[in-house]
Amino acid sequence: MSMMNNLDKKQEMQEIHLDQLQLPQELKKLSYPQCRRIAKEIRSLMVRVISRNGGHLASNLGTVELTMALHRVFDSPQDKFVWDVGHQCYTHKILTGRMRDFQTIRKENGISGFPKPDESPHDAFISGHSSTSISVACGIAESMRLRGDNHHVVAIIGDGAMTGGLAFEGLNNAGKLKNLIVILNDNNMSISGNVGSVSGYLRSIREKESYVRTKQAVEKVLVNTPHVGMPVAKVLKGTKDGVRNILVRQATLFEQMGFVYFGPVDGHDQQDLEEVLRTARRYDCPVFIHVKTIKGKGYLPAEKNPSQFHGVSKFDMMTGNPEISGADCYSTVFGKELVHLAKEHPQICAITAAMKYGTGLQYFEAEIPERFFDVGIAEQHAVTFAAGLASTGMVPVFAVYSTFLQRAYDQLVHDVAIGGHHLVLGIDRAGVVGEDGETHQGMFDIPMLTSIPNTTIYAPACYEELRLCMQQAILRDTGIAAVRYPRGDEKLMSFPRGELNTDYTLTEDENADILLISYGRTYDAVYRAHCTCQKSGYPTSLLKLTRILPVAQELAELVKRYQTIIFFEESMENGGISSIFGTMLAEHGFGGRYMRVACTDFLRHASIPSLLERLKLSEHAVCRYIYEYGKKN
Amino acid sequence: MSMMNNLDKKQEMQEIHLDQLQLPQELKKLSYPQCRRIAKEIRSLMVRVISRNGGHLASNLGTVELTMALHRVFDSPQDKFVWDVGHQCYTHKILTGRMRDFQTIRKENGISGFPKPDESPHDAFISGHSSTSISVACGIAESMRLRGDNHHVVAIIGDGAMTGGLAFEGLNNAGKLKNLIVILNDNNMSISGNVGSVSGYLRSIREKESYVRTKQAVEKVLVNTPHVGMPVAKVLKGTKDGVRNILVRQATLFEQMGFVYFGPVDGHDQQDLEEVLRTARRYDCPVFIHVKTIKGKGYLPAEKNPSQFHGVSKFDMMTGNPEISGADCYSTVFGKELVHLAKEHPQICAITAAMKYGTGLQYFEAEIPERFFDVGIAEQHAVTFAAGLASTGMVPVFAVYSTFLQRAYDQLVHDVAIGGHHLVLGIDRAGVVGEDGETHQGMFDIPMLTSIPNTTIYAPACYEELRLCMQQAILRDTGIAAVRYPRGDEKLMSFPRGELNTDYTLTEDENADILLISYGRTYDAVYRAHCTCQKSGYPTSLLKLTRILPVAQELAELVKRYQTIIFFEESMENGGISSIFGTMLAEHGFGGRYMRVACTDFLRHASIPSLLERLKLSEHAVCRYIYEYGKKN
Repeated sequence: MSMMNNLDKKQEMQEIHLDQLQLPQELKKLSYPQCRRIAKEIRSLMVRVISRNGGHLASNLGTVELTMALHRVFDSPQDKFVWDVGHQCYTHKILTGRMRDFQTIRKENGISGFPKPDESPHDAFISGHSSTSISVACGIAESMRLRGDNHHVVAIIGDGAMTGGLAFEGLNNAGKLKNLIVILNDNNMSISGNVGSVSGYLRSIREKESYVRTKQAVEKVLVNTPHVGMPVAKVLKGTKDGVRNILVRQATLFEQMGFVYFGPVDGHDQQDLEEVLRTARRYDCPVFIHVKTIKGKGYLPAEKNPSQFHGVSKFDMMTGNPEISGADCYSTVFGKELVHLAKEHPQICAITAAMKYGTGLQYFEAEIPERFFDVGIAEQHAVTFAAGLASTGMVPVFAVYSTFLQRAYDQLVHDVAIGGHHLVLGIDRAGVVGEDGETHQGMFDIPMLTSIPNTTIYAPACYEELRLCMQQAILRDTGIAAVRYPRGDEKLMSFPRGELNTDYTLTEDENADILLISYGRTYDAVYRAHCTCQKSGYPTSLLKLTRILPVAQELAELVKRYQTIIFFEESMENGGISSIFGTMLAEHGFGGRYMRVACTDFLRHASIPSLLERLKLSEHAVCRYIYEYGKKN
Repeated sequence: MSMMNNLDKKQEMQEIHLDQLQLPQELKKLSYPQCRRIAKEIRSLMVRVISRNGGHLASNLGTVELTMALHRVFDSPQDKFVWDVGHQCYTHKILTGRMRDFQTIRKENGISGFPKPDESPHDAFISGHSSTSISVACGIAESMRLRGDNHHVVAIIGDGAMTGGLAFEGLNNAGKLKNLIVILNDNNMSISGNVGSVSGYLRSIREKESYVRTKQAVEKVLVNTPHVGMPVAKVLKGTKDGVRNILVRQATLFEQMGFVYFGPVDGHDQQDLEEVLRTARRYDCPVFIHVKTIKGKGYLPAEKNPSQFHGVSKFDMMTGNPEISGADCYSTVFGKELVHLAKEHPQICAITAAMKYGTGLQYFEAEIPERFFDVGIAEQHAVTFAAGLASTGMVPVFAVYSTFLQRAYDQLVHDVAIGGHHLVLGIDRAGVVGEDGETHQGMFDIPMLTSIPNTTIYAPACYEELRLCMQQAILRDTGIAAVRYPRGDEKLMSFPRGELNTDYTLTEDENADILLISYGRTYDAVYRAHCTCQKSGYPTSLLKLTRILPVAQELAELVKRYQTIIFFEESMENGGISSIFGTMLAEHGFGGRYMRVACTDFLRHASIPSLLERLKLSEHAVCRYIYEYGKKN
């Protein structure tokens, strides 16, 4: 300890910069004042890059000191850090060999905005969905035990992620692990403000005076007393309960779940953080460290409006004004239409799982607060809760990102569908979402839902059709009725308004031997390609589906005369609509050529247009198909 | 209170029997001694019927007094009871107009073993999967609030179900509800012994002296003091925190989550139970009541071996000996083979979510305890934990019932598949399961898995093939590799041993124009039908699939010459293998007739043979197809 301090004082005089360090090793040699300077450099690098690339800013500004402390106390990659949610890993990336690549973050072929083991051995596990870290860390810790590896696993979990049931299942199973440390990164803030009693509970202990100082003071005295220190520290490990009885005044929820609890610790005090981490490392049982951080720390616009800077597109670095257009997007159109319907129909309720702004439900909350429910990051609860509402005559509408709906598959099957309840799903961010990459693409909602009996799915191709589908799903349908729509805004619509409906439109060209089928956003690309090719003498017929499930059975007979049928689908192939359609064709004796263009694998981060091009779902790609198969006629 | 007691004394002299009462109304008129007699009659009725029909015995013997107390204190169906898991609802069924039908429980066309709203208005919600009740109750409670209904919702949740993350999400969202009561039915026993720190925590408070007496005593005095009583009781509602500070010595985990806590209460003391329920009803905030019950109470064989009597087939009522055959079933063959492989391969780990016996993993626990993990009812954790193990080189094998795997869809996609981890799934009870009905049929595992990239599924048709598939999945495959097998035992195998493999067998008859395709258990029925029909001059070719995903691409060209192809599949139709196969045929220009025989809706309880007959997956049904389409040749 004292040797370290001498070193500190010498080095303190030296100006040290981020790009001069061998990272992460040399981080350990820095004095605390040097750390502060490096932290400042990291923050300014992050603000600079994210103002250009977009990304998760506020949460990363909040975890700079914590991440540095982790890398100074532990030895990555032998010790493993599991980030939850993974988007708070930017400092970690900068400190583990990716400082120069950091400017490419979230760009195609650049580094990912989430931990990626194939990017660096320092990234223990990929995580784009929340609440996974404790379970992952349990697995790694048990594996270490079995392999006789004495390193540590540290799960860093946000207070928002802590409300997901999976985190609780992880805590419940962590009780016997000797090398597990769970760090609660508590910024009093899920994505759009925290909800629920756990959040209230955390607030109550966050406001208490920290008792970590007391604990540390005792241990420090013990450790620093020659000949007594280390042995006693060892004894501390063995007799933790005794120590706890002396030092701990009131058992926290986490202690009741089998952890030794330290906190709350100031997450921007490097020294405090490191001391508590060093202490935690000495225990032979799971340790829970409650760290208070400030979302947006060090960049005033983000500190003031952390929600706005949770996940951002580009913004003006000097003013902090994000490039938010005032124009509508699918989410806001959905949110406004839902308010409109709910004002006329008092049984309509709106539910979000911590995505009030993302799903456009802020309007509903403002206008009809008594029927608005934000359940926190808890999609399972959202669906089962909705089933409870529906069982007594309400009409719940759950607005959720496609990728997060994956959490509630069993609840859809078991709690909603078996009972025949009427649940409306607003499936936002359906299809490719772009820069967040494989953990966030909305490609599984259709395969999930197609297998569930009595389910209806709509894929509107523009705002107006979205409204039509919502009215149909909410006011007329029964069972599960889902409306899926993409991230972002409606593009300039090229297809005729006459095609707007909630069923399908078959537009036949009598000279055509090719039929093109699509739905949702993709349909417009298909329509444009159809127009382009028509002018070049390649006629095609078109089938636009709006209700994609159940597939209208009469279609098979209507279209089986075509020589070639090509289905363009922005979804996973197996279990998708093109699969149902293909089988239907086989069942009706279609003898021509059936082709599918759909997604078959996970998609790395890139812009949406680039991903659509790669999936062959762009106007250009559709044209190529028409030219290739049109020639043969 | 005192009037009631006078009534009690008069009635006490009368012998009253269950079948003479107008239920549930007249239950309220009984004295406590009469209640005891009725409880005894209920128990003997349950033992008698379940010894014949099979069912959940131990948990139902444990909740007789609790259920009676609920119906005496509350007014069902205006007050709603949500049972979790639903299989503890037998007393409730007997008390709500289904005493005479009780002998038909779990029989085809008889009453269900789970709550069923379409069976009785007293059944608020269907529940066969665990941990749903608090979320459902939250939904019903909010709906009551919106409709100005002042009745109560009571969720009755077992201590096993309490470890599921969904229950935690529900607790976290219950904080503001005024008419919600959660009853923890704590029998210190999940299905096969409890695990995890919550269970340890419950044990610690269960062993403490109850302080419910103190609370009740105070309230009783207040309520019974004329002119002071009720107003003060009202004040209690308003100033609950004050009251809690006076009465509560140590905050429980449930109080920290926003509940008023009462407990532990003796779940077999009718009077105590009713007093605490009446007290709970007076609070204007969510109340948590911790009730201690004894699983199997009142029937000695079940009290001694509650695990054995959790879910039973028939048993001898006098001796308590279940009709357990010593012969193997798919689960035990799986469990034994896994031990065999794990002894040779030290990286193999076995995971169960509270189904050690059901999945045959008891052998693994006995022989290799250090690599055996029972995570409790927590399928999400099981999969993410497995991903953590796999990320560091272990080979986790998660043995799970098909229906419960539904809980972990997102974990399979996000935590396992994106990272490319090697996870082996032993999917037990795949296909129809019989008497447990729609909540337990294993029909969704295939649609869930087919959409996930880099996933392999095997459906062995007998024990020997199960072993082959396990070896392939565990030792040679990568990514998610699932082996699915049915409930129960291998039937007498009729197809030739030469067809055993992990790929497929195409057996062609040159005179045949019909090709029959199937896999797993169903294949044997198809083979038998094929033999029967062949003798009558109706030749068919056969395709037996063992690896059902990915479908071997060469098959399309091999089979497209057939006039008729019929796929028999014990799974949901959409997203099933017959759907993938049909699309593949369409893509390869198959011009014949393709037919599918698969499941399209939820299946009510009945015996397995009866369900297979209904699904047209029996030998008989397959024969009918062959005769119908064979004639046309």
